[in-house]
Amino acid sequence: MEIRKNILPRKTLDTIQPYSPGKPIWEVQKELGLDRVIKLASNENPLGPSPKAVEAIKKSLSELNRYPDADATALKTAIAEQYGVTTSQIIPTNGADELITLVSEAFLEQGDEIIVPSPSFSEYDFGAHIMGAKVVPVPFAENFEFDVDAILAAVTNKTKIIYICTPNNPTGTIMAKADIEKVLNSVNDILVVIDGAYSHFADVPEYTEGVEFAKAGYPVIVLQTFSKIYGIAGLRVGFGIAPEEIIQSVLKVKEPFNVNALAQTAATAAITDTEHVKASREANKAGRELFYKTFKELGLKYTESEANFVLVEVGPNGEEIYKALMAQGVIVRYGKTWGLPEFIRVSVGTPEENEFFIEVLNGLLAKQA
Amino acid sequence: MEIRKNILPRKTLDTIQPYSPGKPIWEVQKELGLDRVIKLASNENPLGPSPKAVEAIKKSLSELNRYPDADATALKTAIAEQYGVTTSQIIPTNGADELITLVSEAFLEQGDEIIVPSPSFSEYDFGAHIMGAKVVPVPFAENFEFDVDAILAAVTNKTKIIYICTPNNPTGTIMAKADIEKVLNSVNDILVVIDGAYSHFADVPEYTEGVEFAKAGYPVIVLQTFSKIYGIAGLRVGFGIAPEEIIQSVLKVKEPFNVNALAQTAATAAITDTEHVKASREANKAGRELFYKTFKELGLKYTESEANFVLVEVGPNGEEIYKALMAQGVIVRYGKTWGLPEFIRVSVGTPEENEFFIEVLNGLLAKQA
Repeated sequence: MEIRKNILPRKTLDTIQPYSPGKPIWEVQKELGLDRVIKLASNENPLGPSPKAVEAIKKSLSELNRYPDADATALKTAIAEQYGVTTSQIIPTNGADELITLVSEAFLEQGDEIIVPSPSFSEYDFGAHIMGAKVVPVPFAENFEFDVDAILAAVTNKTKIIYICTPNNPTGTIMAKADIEKVLNSVNDILVVIDGAYSHFADVPEYTEGVEFAKAGYPVIVLQTFSKIYGIAGLRVGFGIAPEEIIQSVLKVKEPFNVNALAQTAATAAITDTEHVKASREANKAGRELFYKTFKELGLKYTESEANFVLVEVGPNGEEIYKALMAQGVIVRYGKTWGLPEFIRVSVGTPEENEFFIEVLNGLLAKQA
Repeated sequence: MEIRKNILPRKTLDTIQPYSPGKPIWEVQKELGLDRVIKLASNENPLGPSPKAVEAIKKSLSELNRYPDADATALKTAIAEQYGVTTSQIIPTNGADELITLVSEAFLEQGDEIIVPSPSFSEYDFGAHIMGAKVVPVPFAENFEFDVDAILAAVTNKTKIIYICTPNNPTGTIMAKADIEKVLNSVNDILVVIDGAYSHFADVPEYTEGVEFAKAGYPVIVLQTFSKIYGIAGLRVGFGIAPEEIIQSVLKVKEPFNVNALAQTAATAAITDTEHVKASREANKAGRELFYKTFKELGLKYTESEANFVLVEVGPNGEEIYKALMAQGVIVRYGKTWGLPEFIRVSVGTPEENEFFIEVLNGLLAKQA
């Protein structure tokens, strides 16, 4: 048999940039021959998974031969209770990543536009590119503050979605409630996606994760994830909250068994694990403060963060510093992905991990000085 | 705040029919107030999950706060070994369902056509409809045999994909190796998807799951799943094997963390669990034979199946029989979904479940006679 002609994919997929995940610990250990490697690159929960979630999983392993509940009934009920919405206003997904794809598939036609305050989470672009839609990036104002006027100025009659990632990844900045309201009241027939993946870490009073707007019937879908505060990134579960009509539209493009059974079980337990949530939030806050103090001492400019990571400007030799950190066993995210070659983004780790990062960073900058 | 105008989804989504999963056991128990309910409706493995998979899961629960390996390295290595292909010829997915969507997203433009020998698995249509492509169904010949000439006659210059589900769901029939070769050698620039979800249950010599064609470089993608013989439907993991160029195209539309960590761990263990595979295959074969014997005695026409279910013609009162089985605690799949209102599809269960089904069916048909 001979090799046949290759089947070419859709032309529009040429616009898709491959996602670059943080390097896994084992890979860095292997490549660099290091014993101690810590990963502060993926904004994971350093305290580990919710213990309630782990217990719930253990009890349901014998039933894995059965398909998951296609409606995720128990999980939706738990979410509904937590947020004071109805189950018909909720869609659980295979991580929030999948929800972004589904929203794109439900609403974006070829040539449509999405507005993304940038830099932000790359999956918004990915979803648009799959559908042949165009990404309109809107730069942040000074100190990575959201530029509401610039966002509104970018709206055209082709705009179908405005993404608001708040707290924003990778800047850690938020869009205040009043500003979200301004956006919502200034546009028509545009879906506003409020991505609150990091909402639990925000503690300024002007913050909202946006569920109130979905409840009020605005064309808003709020994204949430179990990968951050709840510590079950490995299981893949996120969800959306929106007016029922919007949920119905997104449900049309959902595969029946998108959320696996253990994810449903674990998330249903994790959402009630207030102790783990509280501990995670407090540990994160302490870690952020420690980072701020360190960066100040080192004379590095950083952005105050409402999330579980901090974006810090390390200077023109950013790539060197990123690589030198890795060479000493500290994986962070290099800012070049976001067009910020003088920055790194570091996730808050355990107290020990945070100290190790600081020690290595101090050593590096001392050597340079 | 007032309710704003609804955001309308893409027009093409009107063609999507909602998937109707088999009713869950708890739902039937609750609705009908029954103690004993068995589900022979979703072609699950009645022996339960691979014990090796369950053990592997238990060992990895503490790491659930970490994102899964985006490349599914360990799983791909295990699959590569099993099938004698390279890891670059493999893509693991969130169940085979997701792979069908990804293949559709990678290759189908609005107005393209897919050919589906019908009735078959509904997700092929779903994938096409998301992309605005047209489904061209080709009826089976007598006794639900594949009609290769009719399939080839349906090819137009808009055909982008031909789906061959073998063993086919819901008929249990296969397309012989020589016929697949005939299809492959008769078409150009068309991707042939060979869905082998039920391949492990096939035992006629003319059967192939199609990997040999992918290895030879034909534009073929072979679909496989861990939801059937391996018994981990709840975890959601499937994969595709194809020439590297095709895998590269599909990878473009894949979300980075589509396969959850426990699914990767469990599947990597399950694929080497030869004992569980063997026991599952033998139990299935015995169950099929028992069903054949019963149907013969009852004078019911059935199709010999190479899968883990049997399609049986129960007659003009098919819906009544389906409902009466359910009322007595036996959930099967009613054929109307596939345009076969005089048929039911029954999955092979445990010996006890099979006996219970037969007992109830006997009782029903005796009452009617």
